[in-house]
Amino acid sequence: MVQAVALARNEEGIGAALGILKQQFGERFQTGASIREQHAHTTTWIINQPPDGVVFAHSTQEVSDIVKICAAHKVPIIPFGTGTSLEGHVNAPAGGVSIDVSQMASVLEVNAGDLDCRVQPGVTRMALNTHLRDQGLFFPIDPGADASIGGMAATRASGTNAVRYGTMKDNVLSLEVVMPNGEIIRTASRARKSSAGYDLTRLMVGSEGTLAIITEVTLRLQGIPEAISAASCSFPTVEAACETVMAVIQYGLPVARIELLDAMVVKAVNSYSKLTLPETPLLLLEFHGSDAGVAEQAETFGALAEEFGGNGYAATTSAEERNKLWQARHDAYWAMLALRPGCKAVATDVCVPISKLAEAVVATNEKAAELGLVAPIVGHAGDGNFHASVLIDMDDAQEVARAEAFVSWLNDRAIALGGTCTGEHGIGQGKRPYLVKELGGAVDVMAAIKHALDPDDIMNPGKIMP
Amino acid sequence: MVQAVALARNEEGIGAALGILKQQFGERFQTGASIREQHAHTTTWIINQPPDGVVFAHSTQEVSDIVKICAAHKVPIIPFGTGTSLEGHVNAPAGGVSIDVSQMASVLEVNAGDLDCRVQPGVTRMALNTHLRDQGLFFPIDPGADASIGGMAATRASGTNAVRYGTMKDNVLSLEVVMPNGEIIRTASRARKSSAGYDLTRLMVGSEGTLAIITEVTLRLQGIPEAISAASCSFPTVEAACETVMAVIQYGLPVARIELLDAMVVKAVNSYSKLTLPETPLLLLEFHGSDAGVAEQAETFGALAEEFGGNGYAATTSAEERNKLWQARHDAYWAMLALRPGCKAVATDVCVPISKLAEAVVATNEKAAELGLVAPIVGHAGDGNFHASVLIDMDDAQEVARAEAFVSWLNDRAIALGGTCTGEHGIGQGKRPYLVKELGGAVDVMAAIKHALDPDDIMNPGKIMP
Repeated sequence: MVQAVALARNEEGIGAALGILKQQFGERFQTGASIREQHAHTTTWIINQPPDGVVFAHSTQEVSDIVKICAAHKVPIIPFGTGTSLEGHVNAPAGGVSIDVSQMASVLEVNAGDLDCRVQPGVTRMALNTHLRDQGLFFPIDPGADASIGGMAATRASGTNAVRYGTMKDNVLSLEVVMPNGEIIRTASRARKSSAGYDLTRLMVGSEGTLAIITEVTLRLQGIPEAISAASCSFPTVEAACETVMAVIQYGLPVARIELLDAMVVKAVNSYSKLTLPETPLLLLEFHGSDAGVAEQAETFGALAEEFGGNGYAATTSAEERNKLWQARHDAYWAMLALRPGCKAVATDVCVPISKLAEAVVATNEKAAELGLVAPIVGHAGDGNFHASVLIDMDDAQEVARAEAFVSWLNDRAIALGGTCTGEHGIGQGKRPYLVKELGGAVDVMAAIKHALDPDDIMNPGKIMP
Repeated sequence: MVQAVALARNEEGIGAALGILKQQFGERFQTGASIREQHAHTTTWIINQPPDGVVFAHSTQEVSDIVKICAAHKVPIIPFGTGTSLEGHVNAPAGGVSIDVSQMASVLEVNAGDLDCRVQPGVTRMALNTHLRDQGLFFPIDPGADASIGGMAATRASGTNAVRYGTMKDNVLSLEVVMPNGEIIRTASRARKSSAGYDLTRLMVGSEGTLAIITEVTLRLQGIPEAISAASCSFPTVEAACETVMAVIQYGLPVARIELLDAMVVKAVNSYSKLTLPETPLLLLEFHGSDAGVAEQAETFGALAEEFGGNGYAATTSAEERNKLWQARHDAYWAMLALRPGCKAVATDVCVPISKLAEAVVATNEKAAELGLVAPIVGHAGDGNFHASVLIDMDDAQEVARAEAFVSWLNDRAIALGGTCTGEHGIGQGKRPYLVKELGGAVDVMAAIKHALDPDDIMNPGKIMP
């Protein structure tokens, strides 16, 4: 396994804090092995490093109280939402206390007139959208998992809709957070834009629990579009599919989604979901707008795709057919796992400037083949972000080593192309060496900010910082 | 005059630094009274506090060298672009050195395929758009002045297009900055999205030169739309105009611009520009998209406006007619000044949640009348951002006092409505007390970051921080 560094433990402080938390929170403070293990990472190839205890918080004030107890004893705090992050974010390499906010799951306020809402951090994206549907509103950010809004803010998550609606960075208006000293602050007003001082909202979004713990999130919302049209289109090569995406973006076509599945993924979903898609690279699309607008977009896309040899293109506004079309994408993760039963899927997450997409994807396919790895690719292609998921037999040390070499090569390659090692998953434990390769001296500035706000390094230690 | 606090001067350090700069930069280092005064503020009611010298930098390395000299002698640094900021941002309350980057004005790279470009900080927005036009691209952010891109990033500027294209926060992909110790860092890759560590780009955008000095900006660009349609519509009351804007935003109509001029501004531009607009509140609009798309948007707007008593509505796709329509908006500043010749126009800059826009604008008109002030309003209404420009006879101490009371009332009112004291101008010297009212303890977090990155407080001291 990789990056399994354990940090020094403050045994005395941990013991003291655990005693106080037990006393104050009773049954809501748990130290059983199973629950502790559930609150650390098992979904990646990074080893599980459980916290010493898990406390289920019910309010901002409780979070503040817990933080103050941990701060007084210099005990690590690991914020926990749904545990669906992918880079060891909820591991506890120095032990400490997992603050589970999943029971802080109320939608506090929906301001339909302002297209915004205020939620507790444990609300999941699906629960929020269920809550909003009756008001004709939706929240567009959709990482694969039904993640918590707090966790999504913490990792600067995005998903399939980011090409149209942006990422968490663009859709969080304001945060309430508890600082490492227990102080509660609000980062911004509810105004749609502001030049009032440093952008603490954006500093906290993507800080992965290393600067503060998020206790409320104010989000931008979108009106459910008048019309939604979905489409799929097959391509002779992955290069042709990527070149089509590049043309779409350069044209300025406002696609709501444009997802790439390489030939291996298409084969996998055909087998897994009993579909009969042509086993060549596929683009899945969605257009949002007025009836006339989506028809026009769909037509424009068709014309662009044709230039690159796209075939089998068809768009539909039927919700049922749309869901069927997108089934291939939704099933992709499980379908890929089924390619090599018993193997671990390790998701990479590079993002390159759109003009480099075809080059990067083609080279990634080739590199995986060269190393004898099974690494199917799905991508949020319109952002230049794609995930090669390496299927690894973790009992085969040589294969693990080749997978490590592949991940390292891919991250380096993306950085060399002017891109990033992580489009949406974050740095966590796993990508710390690449952060330095990507941003150099800027990481020292990050470290200075971290040290200023959290001098005892209690907030999610061992994450982001090298 | 207001907020004219002078800070303690480090005479010895300033003397030493000036000597070295003179030696190294020769004629590019200036200490004449006139040039020093030009590099401090005269456009607001905040008094002019000139730096001790002005150095014209030609490269990132030179900026770094200058910063190192100033850092070694603990001498204040005031970054300077075009000097069009409005809250005393370029004043030197503790003296020091103005680093003028206006001669760093090259467009370094345009990546048409990625819809981005890399520019030096002294490039102005109009120069950039002239440079881009041949490639079918444009940069949408348009503060009133022909500001420098570096300055626009530093104040988190926006303008009339923000309702569609966002602010500088949304359109800066990456920055190269010189830190207070002279180190040069790049804040992000060129990828369209990233989760790689703390969002230093957004931290620097809006930091008003208090954390670092911007030496390169990588910007998102837009394709020039296939079709542009412009329109104007008059309303019986300012409330009706604002309610129309609220309906447009709530409907999700993707207007590119929706600007409000109150009745006093319309009267002023009629007189100044020899127009014959009905002297009632006016909305000016622009729609971007395909031919069919802009026609559909224009029609939808017309239907919404009618519900609120809009009249004289007409849309046009002719560039000539469009320019004529927008003349009223472009002339508004000079037209307003002509309402009271010899007076100073002091621009306020509140921004409220869109549902509070009508309430806020009506109350602002009433408050100005109550205080016997002339304070015409123009607004980037789609963002909830509006500017009441108070025309003040600076020789009338009582009027100045009433204007101060008005500004204070307006900022407090916006904050009470869930908004901000500054939508786009920034805090500078003028709005420091309101920043604390707006964000409370969050300002302590800002101060901790400032102190961590700039422990000697040499970067634009006396700005933002209370």
